[in-house]
Amino acid sequence: MKKVAIGVDIGGGSFKLGLVDLNGRVLARESFLTNSVSGRKAQLDVLAAHVAHFIKEARKKALRVRGVGIGAPGPIDVERGFVYFFPNIPGWKDTPLKDLLEKRLKRPVSVDNDANVMALAEFEFGAGRGTKNVIALTLGTGVGGGLVMDGRLFHGPRYSAAEIGHLVINEDGPMCACGSRGCVETYVGSGYFVREVKRRLKRGAKSILKKWTKENGKEITPLLVARAARRGDAFSKEIWRETGGHLGTALAGLANILNPEKIILGGGIAQNGSLLFKPLIAALGKKAFPIAARSVRVVPAALGVDAGLIGAAALVFAEHGDF
Amino acid sequence: MKKVAIGVDIGGGSFKLGLVDLNGRVLARESFLTNSVSGRKAQLDVLAAHVAHFIKEARKKALRVRGVGIGAPGPIDVERGFVYFFPNIPGWKDTPLKDLLEKRLKRPVSVDNDANVMALAEFEFGAGRGTKNVIALTLGTGVGGGLVMDGRLFHGPRYSAAEIGHLVINEDGPMCACGSRGCVETYVGSGYFVREVKRRLKRGAKSILKKWTKENGKEITPLLVARAARRGDAFSKEIWRETGGHLGTALAGLANILNPEKIILGGGIAQNGSLLFKPLIAALGKKAFPIAARSVRVVPAALGVDAGLIGAAALVFAEHGDF
Repeated sequence: MKKVAIGVDIGGGSFKLGLVDLNGRVLARESFLTNSVSGRKAQLDVLAAHVAHFIKEARKKALRVRGVGIGAPGPIDVERGFVYFFPNIPGWKDTPLKDLLEKRLKRPVSVDNDANVMALAEFEFGAGRGTKNVIALTLGTGVGGGLVMDGRLFHGPRYSAAEIGHLVINEDGPMCACGSRGCVETYVGSGYFVREVKRRLKRGAKSILKKWTKENGKEITPLLVARAARRGDAFSKEIWRETGGHLGTALAGLANILNPEKIILGGGIAQNGSLLFKPLIAALGKKAFPIAARSVRVVPAALGVDAGLIGAAALVFAEHGDF
Repeated sequence: MKKVAIGVDIGGGSFKLGLVDLNGRVLARESFLTNSVSGRKAQLDVLAAHVAHFIKEARKKALRVRGVGIGAPGPIDVERGFVYFFPNIPGWKDTPLKDLLEKRLKRPVSVDNDANVMALAEFEFGAGRGTKNVIALTLGTGVGGGLVMDGRLFHGPRYSAAEIGHLVINEDGPMCACGSRGCVETYVGSGYFVREVKRRLKRGAKSILKKWTKENGKEITPLLVARAARRGDAFSKEIWRETGGHLGTALAGLANILNPEKIILGGGIAQNGSLLFKPLIAALGKKAFPIAARSVRVVPAALGVDAGLIGAAALVFAEHGDF
């Protein structure tokens, strides 16, 4: 019987579910909007109903469901499958998610945070295939991270490892929401990125962005700044040069400490190709030790929006030793 | 039969050898000055003779020698036991140390760099006992590092992991010998530390150090600055506050990424107690994530100068699964 797992990607916007096979293929999908169902209890009910439906469908197709994996948007006690809280979904404080679902579903449930799940997905099925040591970063509003070391997700004893966004690259840098200064997130997190662009424009920088935002009513976003840079806007090109440089500094530190084979970049900011990657790779080459720099490749994530549910399913396969 | 291993600590000053048991006790010692024997070939001859003598002694005492472990002062290919070079001992470029010694001694030989060996020693027998995840730093002229993760030394695929001294904490910081800027080594390496103290004194800072160096002919060293700080010298106290703060920033980044249980500090700079540890722990508490900060303890190394040969012996025990 062909082995499959049910992957669940919990997000502030929606819960996504997929029936995923050992090759990382999504055989079936379902989803529901997080806000369409109010409160944790109802969300768990709907989630369980979707999972039950998948299990029934799998049985019809003679697929063997190994378990349910969940990628969750907040800090998790991975061993107990316990949710501390979700910053963007109210009502989930201190939820024994694994216990609750295992009781209902009579299937093994694995839970990990979304950044680790993304790292595992890319490692098993995406840009990290064929390696043993991968660092994966998700560049969004914040910067999430996951570490695969010697072929396994590394959590640290209290499951709080891989907070790569909060590596300090400039002690005198901007204040970070975490209370520190100059964390890499304060340079490449999209919120900080946009704030810095606006600050410089207000202080008189010349850029086509002024015209686009004032006359055409557009919002400053990393994507808009990328578009301006590609049109030759010097200000926007400089912004990307700096952003790539800052990220390169952080990756050089990571390469010196962990000597990874691949560093995989996902999320919106990472989708700007050479605007980000060129200055980043230059900084990495200059700032990392030669052996570390030579042995690492920095690549964009390969799985896109499916990484969450594929990686969640991969948690199950990894736990059962199916790979 | 009681198991022992022969630990060898190769240094620019001397080669130290110890017969070490499974509890990390040094049962016998021998050593020779590196410069008293000229050239790699002769150094290997003398080393092999000492090892042969230990093996004979062990046989008399009915001890079972599991092998020879070597801590080496330079980059190593750990799997092949291959020395790339030793910055402070000429003539060792591209030496297949493991192969050469195994042929001569008919015993298994393990080789690793001195920072990893120190980390392993402290993990098995010293300040890291009873944990699974340890970061060890040696604060000398440079800053060396070793990582024990999930109970094992972590090398990275090209054996270049744990170069913790070259984590950048300030992109705009001082130039580092490695080609980057603001590596933690440029703040806490003793060479940089002394240079910065001299620079500030020359620029007019008031300090008792001026009197001590001019009238009493003393050299500026971290130890001297520590002595001045303990005597209440405000300048020297500030220097240590800053040094501890910089190291704390680096350790906060490491704690956020690796979530260690212990961070162990060895080397001269680490022997200045609360002068270093107090500002360091304050910075770590402020800059690391609460979970990471709460779950880590920063402690001084416990094994002192024996860490090298004890850790070298531990390489052998670890390889044979004796622990």
